[in-house]
Amino acid sequence: MDLVPVILSGGVGSRLWPVSREAHPKPFMTLPGGQNLIQKTFLRASRLPGVSQVMTVTNRELLFKTEDEYRTVNQSGHAQSYILEPFGRNTAAAVAMAALQLQKAQGDDAQMLVLAADHLIQDEQAFARAVATAQQLAAEGWLVTFGIQPQYPETGFGYIEASHSCGESGGLTVARFVEKPDLKTAEGYIAAGNYFWNSGMFCFRVGTVLAELHQHAPEVLEVAQQTLAASRLATSGADSWLTLDTEQFAKAPDISIDYALMERSSKVATVPCDIGWNDIGSWNAVSELTSVDQDGNRFEGEVLAHGASNNYVNSEGRLTALVGVKDLLVIDTPDAVLVAHKDHAQDVKHIVGQLKAQSHTAHLLHQTVHRPWGTYTTLENGERFKIKRIVVKPGASLSLQMHHHRSEHWIVVSGMAVVVNDNQELMLNTNESTFIRAGHKHRLKNPGVIDLVLIEVQSGDYLGEDDIVRFEDNYGRCTN
Amino acid sequence: MDLVPVILSGGVGSRLWPVSREAHPKPFMTLPGGQNLIQKTFLRASRLPGVSQVMTVTNRELLFKTEDEYRTVNQSGHAQSYILEPFGRNTAAAVAMAALQLQKAQGDDAQMLVLAADHLIQDEQAFARAVATAQQLAAEGWLVTFGIQPQYPETGFGYIEASHSCGESGGLTVARFVEKPDLKTAEGYIAAGNYFWNSGMFCFRVGTVLAELHQHAPEVLEVAQQTLAASRLATSGADSWLTLDTEQFAKAPDISIDYALMERSSKVATVPCDIGWNDIGSWNAVSELTSVDQDGNRFEGEVLAHGASNNYVNSEGRLTALVGVKDLLVIDTPDAVLVAHKDHAQDVKHIVGQLKAQSHTAHLLHQTVHRPWGTYTTLENGERFKIKRIVVKPGASLSLQMHHHRSEHWIVVSGMAVVVNDNQELMLNTNESTFIRAGHKHRLKNPGVIDLVLIEVQSGDYLGEDDIVRFEDNYGRCTN
Repeated sequence: MDLVPVILSGGVGSRLWPVSREAHPKPFMTLPGGQNLIQKTFLRASRLPGVSQVMTVTNRELLFKTEDEYRTVNQSGHAQSYILEPFGRNTAAAVAMAALQLQKAQGDDAQMLVLAADHLIQDEQAFARAVATAQQLAAEGWLVTFGIQPQYPETGFGYIEASHSCGESGGLTVARFVEKPDLKTAEGYIAAGNYFWNSGMFCFRVGTVLAELHQHAPEVLEVAQQTLAASRLATSGADSWLTLDTEQFAKAPDISIDYALMERSSKVATVPCDIGWNDIGSWNAVSELTSVDQDGNRFEGEVLAHGASNNYVNSEGRLTALVGVKDLLVIDTPDAVLVAHKDHAQDVKHIVGQLKAQSHTAHLLHQTVHRPWGTYTTLENGERFKIKRIVVKPGASLSLQMHHHRSEHWIVVSGMAVVVNDNQELMLNTNESTFIRAGHKHRLKNPGVIDLVLIEVQSGDYLGEDDIVRFEDNYGRCTN
Repeated sequence: MDLVPVILSGGVGSRLWPVSREAHPKPFMTLPGGQNLIQKTFLRASRLPGVSQVMTVTNRELLFKTEDEYRTVNQSGHAQSYILEPFGRNTAAAVAMAALQLQKAQGDDAQMLVLAADHLIQDEQAFARAVATAQQLAAEGWLVTFGIQPQYPETGFGYIEASHSCGESGGLTVARFVEKPDLKTAEGYIAAGNYFWNSGMFCFRVGTVLAELHQHAPEVLEVAQQTLAASRLATSGADSWLTLDTEQFAKAPDISIDYALMERSSKVATVPCDIGWNDIGSWNAVSELTSVDQDGNRFEGEVLAHGASNNYVNSEGRLTALVGVKDLLVIDTPDAVLVAHKDHAQDVKHIVGQLKAQSHTAHLLHQTVHRPWGTYTTLENGERFKIKRIVVKPGASLSLQMHHHRSEHWIVVSGMAVVVNDNQELMLNTNESTFIRAGHKHRLKNPGVIDLVLIEVQSGDYLGEDDIVRFEDNYGRCTN
């Protein structure tokens, strides 16, 4: 039976600020070892037997970024399909949209494996065994959850209470779901032995989940059907992009699949599993991925310490020094640094709340911004100048554009560039440069087969991003 | 009587890392309000009655930086004289050199007021009154110290024990100097009432201090005389620069004027004073200069806090967020961040020690480097490129030079430039740019009357500072 992993790439991960931002959320966080969470999720999903296509449900603003991340790990050439949301509407709508899409393409018997983009699973073999069990149960008509063997009485997760075994597969029927318990209740669950952490992963037969949605959450299913009918599907080879209709999708209730369906259905089973699952829910969870030194410190990046113990430092480039401190989380990024006590790791989200309330951009953007043609990184915002590093993918080009108030100076530091400047076209080799006067139409292309890396220095009295007139654009942005 | 303030600008201020560095030490730290300590010291000194010249004893590497700082505050056009040390040899040698210089120029009756470059005095009127009293005592033949009325039993300072009054000036004779006491002893001093903090400031008649040095520290005086005889004096108008001879000066004993002379002489008096003195000895002392909010926090820069109390943050540009922490010092600079507990503020120097032991440059340099012609700031060190912001003073020019392995691209963002490129000379206006191929001789001048601000992008396979051949240089650096 074909299995289609459906990666839900939604949440912002505000407890992991300042590394996680709205425009660079948690799934894109790079972990020790180099890969990020969404790459690890894609790889784990694509390596399962019977998988030839991976579906991703995400915000449309994250499409190019997601494609970039998959490209570097998708050696096996798995087909990619995307459901692109204009905004988040929780997991019930996302699951319903995915199920309807799969029904259309593969019929009721197709199976979907719902995965979060931002969880870590360290034992991939145990995970594959659990999925195989879940597929058997799904084929028998169960809505299957994955119950994580609890390691300690965590109060930050929901629990699944299992009752009796269903068949010979190793699955258990689910008596009920319980919300995040207090410590005493959680300790009782651990002692009882038949409670599991709710991992938020599911395995469904498409026909079953749609029928159950019809029965228990008809309003979710109905909006999903209307949205699908109004949405735009683009395909290229085996890949596809479904861009959801904003007006219809706005009507979707903002509820989770757990609440909309799983807690209401009587056909729910769980596969108990011990797979090294970590939901990367806070900086404390992230810190566990780094090895600990004799003072209890865990350091990523260049750190000097004197009389410091039990701290976690995550620094992207600068030197961090700790003196006489303990139990701290120090997270350093190019434009913001967080210093938090480990006992208050959950409160980091309040900083993001404050930033939003102040309309500050530090919760939104990193310095590197992804675009269809590549990326740009703002290196410096100075008085009368701005400096960017621009990376243009092979074959890609920026829009033909003009600025009223700034000159732009382009220096090629790697690769080669074709520059249209006013009515001239010239070829720039590595180590060469040119400049575009204010008022001149210009365009930048990478004619080569390796990345073009370019330093752009803007100079002028006004350097706002809104001083741009676009004439031609490969990505349909002339009206921007 | 002429009074010559002698500003000793020596120590590194390693307890104030990462803002204070070897190449940007404590006197250059900018305080809330905008001026730095050495500017405040210069102003305070030059405003005293009878002062027409300010002498500065400092490391020769800090000359241009010091001149730059004085220039912006020396509105009254006071003459500046410098004694330039090749390395530090503590305060006894510095005071002896200054006294010999003054004796030569003005004779034995000239008075010198020895000041530290890195102390803060908040009540300038009380300071001026104390100096007037000290001048009377100095004229009578006393070696005068300034005894600070202790505010609390500080264990980090030396104390002066006063005995009886000398004349009607308000001065007291000094019975003895005591080293940093323990807390109980310090409490006893406060209760006794005749103990004062030793501020490290002095007022001497030149003839007196030289005679006393001859008696109590002849080895210091002798080396100073030999160094003076071998050193090079340059003058320009009323300004002068005495560059000490390295070989002779190396023989100077590394001892303080307190130890070499003040503790041994019987002619020591003190002027008790209450002048708002702060030796800026640690980040705790610096934090006192910032106003406190309702949670006990003191913030310089952009800070967001949640559940944080009694912290000090000093950030030069980036956003700092504090969550659930207390009693911390967070000091953020472009290339290093310090997180220290307030009770361990003195231990920050150990980080500098670790950096030195690792031959790390983060204790030496900031990103902005001062040169005779202006400054340069490294904005980015990338793969195959390096970006600097270069500021050239009006009328100044860089050396005629050539690089084998890198092209340089120059963009004028403010002011105008004359560029010699190979055999051509061209004028660049604001917003214009040019580039210099590897192997081409080139030179940059600022022909205008305002600063030239230029972005330099270097590109090439090798970007080390040692790839430079200098042909002509206004500052005698062709052999560098």
